[in-house]
Amino acid sequence: MAIVVQKYGGTSVGDTDRMKVVADRISRAHRDGDQVVVVVSAMGKSTDELVTMASRISEHPPERELDILLTSGERISMSLLAMALHARGVPAKSFTGSQAGIITDAVHGRARIVDITPGRVKEALDGGNVVIVAGFQGVSQDTKDITTLGRGGSDTTAVALAAALDADVCEIYTDVDGVFTADPRIVPAARKLEIVSYEEMLELAAQGAKVLQVRSVEFGRNHGVRIHVRSSFSYTTGTWVGPEEDKVEDAIISGVAHDTSEAKVTVHAVPDRPGVASRLFTTLADDNINVDMIVQNVSSDGRTDISFTLPRGDADKARGILEPLADDIGAQSVRVDEDVAKVSLVGAGMKTHPGVAAKMFGALSAAGVNIEMISTSTIRVSVVVAKSDVETAVQAVHAVFGLGGDATIEEG
Amino acid sequence: MAIVVQKYGGTSVGDTDRMKVVADRISRAHRDGDQVVVVVSAMGKSTDELVTMASRISEHPPERELDILLTSGERISMSLLAMALHARGVPAKSFTGSQAGIITDAVHGRARIVDITPGRVKEALDGGNVVIVAGFQGVSQDTKDITTLGRGGSDTTAVALAAALDADVCEIYTDVDGVFTADPRIVPAARKLEIVSYEEMLELAAQGAKVLQVRSVEFGRNHGVRIHVRSSFSYTTGTWVGPEEDKVEDAIISGVAHDTSEAKVTVHAVPDRPGVASRLFTTLADDNINVDMIVQNVSSDGRTDISFTLPRGDADKARGILEPLADDIGAQSVRVDEDVAKVSLVGAGMKTHPGVAAKMFGALSAAGVNIEMISTSTIRVSVVVAKSDVETAVQAVHAVFGLGGDATIEEG
Repeated sequence: MAIVVQKYGGTSVGDTDRMKVVADRISRAHRDGDQVVVVVSAMGKSTDELVTMASRISEHPPERELDILLTSGERISMSLLAMALHARGVPAKSFTGSQAGIITDAVHGRARIVDITPGRVKEALDGGNVVIVAGFQGVSQDTKDITTLGRGGSDTTAVALAAALDADVCEIYTDVDGVFTADPRIVPAARKLEIVSYEEMLELAAQGAKVLQVRSVEFGRNHGVRIHVRSSFSYTTGTWVGPEEDKVEDAIISGVAHDTSEAKVTVHAVPDRPGVASRLFTTLADDNINVDMIVQNVSSDGRTDISFTLPRGDADKARGILEPLADDIGAQSVRVDEDVAKVSLVGAGMKTHPGVAAKMFGALSAAGVNIEMISTSTIRVSVVVAKSDVETAVQAVHAVFGLGGDATIEEG
Repeated sequence: MAIVVQKYGGTSVGDTDRMKVVADRISRAHRDGDQVVVVVSAMGKSTDELVTMASRISEHPPERELDILLTSGERISMSLLAMALHARGVPAKSFTGSQAGIITDAVHGRARIVDITPGRVKEALDGGNVVIVAGFQGVSQDTKDITTLGRGGSDTTAVALAAALDADVCEIYTDVDGVFTADPRIVPAARKLEIVSYEEMLELAAQGAKVLQVRSVEFGRNHGVRIHVRSSFSYTTGTWVGPEEDKVEDAIISGVAHDTSEAKVTVHAVPDRPGVASRLFTTLADDNINVDMIVQNVSSDGRTDISFTLPRGDADKARGILEPLADDIGAQSVRVDEDVAKVSLVGAGMKTHPGVAAKMFGALSAAGVNIEMISTSTIRVSVVVAKSDVETAVQAVHAVFGLGGDATIEEG
């Protein structure tokens, strides 16, 4: 008897009719003899609505209370889904993150799972139930307070539960057919990938492909959970995320990701002496600001510019922290640019293929796109460009590497 | 330093603006130096909306899941209220029923509180916080599942917490100014009572005065919690509910209550032998049907009619249970009348004043109201009448006992 974890996102359970469609799909897996654990997100835009409500009450709501508020969305979707299964004659029990044993640290709003104690989940499964678990949430080991795992956290709940239950597969249901070589809304010729490695998926997710939360991929890689990203609106195969050795075709590039959710911060004319960069980023980390790309070039006249990207929502907070600090360390100024976008080329094959970055820069140049920052890893090249250039940039890079494949011709 | 428990109902926190008004009131008590515990209901009609959602998914949703669904309403209101307090510079922490240690039995939908372990509440209070607790909910001692206490259950949460914390007062905030001699919508001359005894309030609540849940009054009486029923829309004194000896004026009658939520069931021509009534009501109790008034008159020809009232929502279920049972015990038929109302006269003073019932029946007769059933306790007389007669009956009884007092003249 296989254990299957299925995760349904907000669009998949957007209203009571969608909920019934999802219940039909779950019933099918249950009747096929699988032990099914379902992780469910809040319905549609309900989490956004709760955030709006909070903002009407307070400009800076305390994070502990915000987490309690936001977790009510999954409580609604999970119990309704259990009812829909009962109505189909399938026994089902729903559990909050806390009840399901999702133990986290105490960082509200982006807690990390530190342990899973799925005793009640296993007991309910062994009792013949479909088990429904609230995504996105857990309980702090230290404070016993309710925590949330950040946007997309339900993916991590699902993969972590799959690891803890030693499940055969973790199916991530979403409103697209899988992982694409680029966002199909920008590049109509984008092709669905059949399989990507954990490493590639990590880079794609980190660089803005929204289909999976980064931490869920890390969890999958660390515990060898095979993830199947697929659509809840069809029964077609989606994209498998697994170890590198699962890949049969050996493409150099898997895809182009883009991210318009970040801002760029530059600290100008920083005195180039040891400890300055460390002090800068330690201060930001202490305030829980997650910095993404960092670029520092060689100095001239004993001074250098340090640039980095961060979530746009944290930009004002970062400016407030950095301006006095810049004074203190003798830097000239702090500049924040919110109109930027990041475009990334990802592929495990580029490790052994020189010239990938050069080809990418050439394509951007030919398309008239100016590059503001560059950062690379062994399997990724990222550039920051003006936000208004993002579509042109993605299309140019996708085309120059021929990622559309046959699909280009079919759809073209 | 006094400990004050305040309970706010759905209308008092109906929207974010009302929430801010309530936060102002709580802040005031906190600044006065009181330790404040707030019990809060779901916002406005949100519980009804959740019930509607469930009914769209399933005709008979499993009770365990329904309880999980319904408790999400308080999760939203309690966290928003905590945010509103923070925004006013008042530290506040919210807790679910389970977190606050509200331990219940496992009867979903109308669980009873069996214990309160308010360790986390006390700790947060001692840390200088206003503590906000979700009303209406708890956690089952045996199954660890989330339970609800039934409609109006937040009152019981508040009084039970007040008892467990040895609070100085339990303030029940609502949208009316207190407990009245009759429903002011039916009797404009109805007068607000300054004080009623637990026993009178129990009878009033049980007979349809909706201002307090019956169990909350039982809890208050058993633990000597002084309850102050008052309006969240004004700062005027409301009605105190306390021990009989607190009462200074010694009115014979405290008020007239009415209840249109019940149906009347009659089992006709029941063989009059020992054990028959017991079997009837044991069977109903086993199916968790709460029977209210029971009337059986002397038999003729070895047969008798047994009538009782019960919540209208349980009428069909009761009929389904009783019809085969009636056959079995040799009764003639089962008849259900849903168009009834109960009118009750309540007053501790009537114990020592004969003729109260007779005066009430006379007033009803003079008003042309036919009495279908009568039931009395030492401090109450209740009659069942046709639903269409309820207003006439309440007005007639209120008038004959002069309950309007001065108010009648002032408003008349």
